This record gives sequence, structure tokens and C-alpha cells, in this order.
Amino acid sequence: MEALKQKIRDEGIVLSEQVLKVDAFLNHQIDPLLMQQIGHEFAERFRDQGITKIVTIEASGIAPAVMAGLELGIPVIFARKFQSLTLKNDLLISKVFSFTKQSESTIAISAKHLNSSDHVLVIDDFLANGHAAKALLDLIGQAGASVAGIGIVIEKSFQEGRDLLESEGYRVESLARVQSLQGGKVSFRD
Amino acid sequence: MEALKQKIRDEGIVLSEQVLKVDAFLNHQIDPLLMQQIGHEFAERFRDQGITKIVTIEASGIAPAVMAGLELGIPVIFARKFQSLTLKNDLLISKVFSFTKQSESTIAISAKHLNSSDHVLVIDDFLANGHAAKALLDLIGQAGASVAGIGIVIEKSFQEGRDLLESEGYRVESLARVQSLQGGKVSFRD
Repeated sequence: MEALKQKIRDEGIVLSEQVLKVDAFLNHQIDPLLMQQIGHEFAERFRDQGITKIVTIEASGIAPAVMAGLELGIPVIFARKFQSLTLKNDLLISKVFSFTKQSESTIAISAKHLNSSDHVLVIDDFLANGHAAKALLDLIGQAGASVAGIGIVIEKSFQEGRDLLESEGYRVESLARVQSLQGGKVSFRD
Repeated sequence: MEALKQKIRDEGIVLSEQVLKVDAFLNHQIDPLLMQQIGHEFAERFRDQGITKIVTIEASGIAPAVMAGLELGIPVIFARKFQSLTLKNDLLISKVFSFTKQSESTIAISAKHLNSSDHVLVIDDFLANGHAAKALLDLIGQAGASVAGIGIVIEKSFQEGRDLLESEGYRVESLARVQSLQGGKVSFRD
């Protein structure tokens, strides 16, 4: 997706050979028009797949997921990273280790919003080692729902996430695939 | 906003005289079409005010804020509730006590995304005692930016949030004003 790649070139900050910071338009400040374009692109790639729900994870997955949900005309569920007073019973629970935060967190989805008749598109902002996506797939599996595929805004192709997910038979669609962050420069794949 | 009130009547769950659960369309599962209508309504109420940025707080504020940002053609910043590896320097910081979670958390905005030339619309999902809004206003004040007003999806009018904010001169626009949750029933104001 060229508009996204150009935005990454213009406003992304390479913090290290592993870390690309996109706080200017995705992870902290959000560019709503770009999110709309991203939602449109996800919808184009997964239209006519019989998808009934989008599942993402708070907080940075929400904007692209809601825009895709608007285009596809389906609800979005965001997995929560902690339990709150109003969300306690009938929870599906999984664990995810965050490299960025160097800590494990529990993520949860209410069982009543997802069931075996659902066909799910998973959307997330980044794909790196695949841990967050795997935890979301675990929750969806617990609900007995099926998975249409995984839509990623920015893939770090030099990490193992895509291989891991594809080896388990999942379709992965990434809108920007970062080949390398070497030399402080973002290089894209294809 | 009638479509929102109807959704609350149909899918809101009254957990107690204080707690209205709207996990079916706002706080956990999100209805993207309703969010678009909410964004449109906020934009109508605050158009032509010279607003340059929307500020909200993760996670449930993001969807309505991004839809409003799309309508107004301006960026959205969501305050984060914790620090991450990629967001450490030049942070504006405030504290907010959550009644729901019975704990205090630190919220933060990167100083580089907000400055004294900004005129800000604050958007949040709920207004109850006003603590979250006050913390966001504190961050905006630290940045030297001005405030056009506060847009709230659901106001619990039986709590003191609106009075607190109005007494300090802020304009508060709530799309649904809940008068009472007594008897397990949602009653709206006006």
C-alpha cells in the first residue's frame, strides 16, 4: 500500500535495527484519513470471505480495525489487556509476551461476543514475532470460531511472525512489509 | 442523539445504580457504523471552531475520536495509560483515578504532538466524575494548547463530572445523557 509506505518513509523513526516508531500516525497520534484508506485496503483484500467479525487488540489495533469494520459492515471486538469491573464473567483468556514492554500480559475477550458461527478477520498494527497474533488466534479458537485471515498494518519481515503464522496455515496480508531497518533507514520488501 | 439512545436501550446492561455496561457496542465490541454517526455528530457540534487536534484516552475513546477526526479532517492523539519502550522522552504526564478499576494510573502524551498553537477537542466514551477528562485537560494545559470543548459519548448526569467541567468554563457536549439507572432501567435526561 503505497500511501502507507510513503507515510512510514516521511514520519517513521528508526530507533534501532529492531524498532520502528510510528507514533506520528498510528501508535499515539492517529491519522484518520490514512486509517480510512487502510480500512478500505483490508476490506478489498478480504471482501466476499463471509467474515462476520473483526478481532483486534487494544489500543493501536482499534483505529484500523474499526475502519475495516465500517467498510465490511461488521462489528469489531478489541481484546482487553486487563480485567475491569464491568468485564469479569465468561471471559476467554490468553497470555502474550510483549518484547516492547518486556512483560507478559493477560488478554481477554468476552465469550458472549464470539461463537462458533463466527468467521473472523484478525487485524493488528504490527507483526513482529507473532506473539500477539497467536494469542488472538488462541482466543478465537477457544470461542470455536474460524479464521479468515490476519490483516497487518506494518510487518517486520525480518522477524519470524509471518513464517510462524503461515506454517500453521493462516493467510497473512500486510499492507507494508519492512525488510530491514539497518543503517537507520526503512527498506521495504517488494 | 436518538440512534445512540436507542442502542443503549436495546443493548446496554444496567449492572447497578452507578454502572451502565455498553460492552456490546462501545467498550469491548464496537459498532463501526454507530461510531461513524457519533463522529459525524461531534463534528457537527464543533465544526468551524478552528479545532486542530482531538485528544482522547485509550482504549474506548479511540473509535469515536477517530471517526470525529475523519469528519473534521484533523489528527487524533490518544493518551496512553503506561509508558512503553518507544514512548519515553518528552512526555506530558498526569494522574487519573479510575473508579471502575479502583486504582490510579499515569496517563501520558508525547509533547511533540501537541503545542501552544493547537486548539483541542477532547473526546471520551464516558463522563462520570470527570477525573479522566480533568487529567486530559491537564495534559493539554501543560502543552500550552487551548480547549474548544469536551465531547462525551455517554454522560452519567447523576454524577458530578459535567458540573465540575462547566464550573471551570468548559463547554461539554454529551450525545446521550443518562439521568438515572434506578430499578435496572436507563432513563435519559431531556
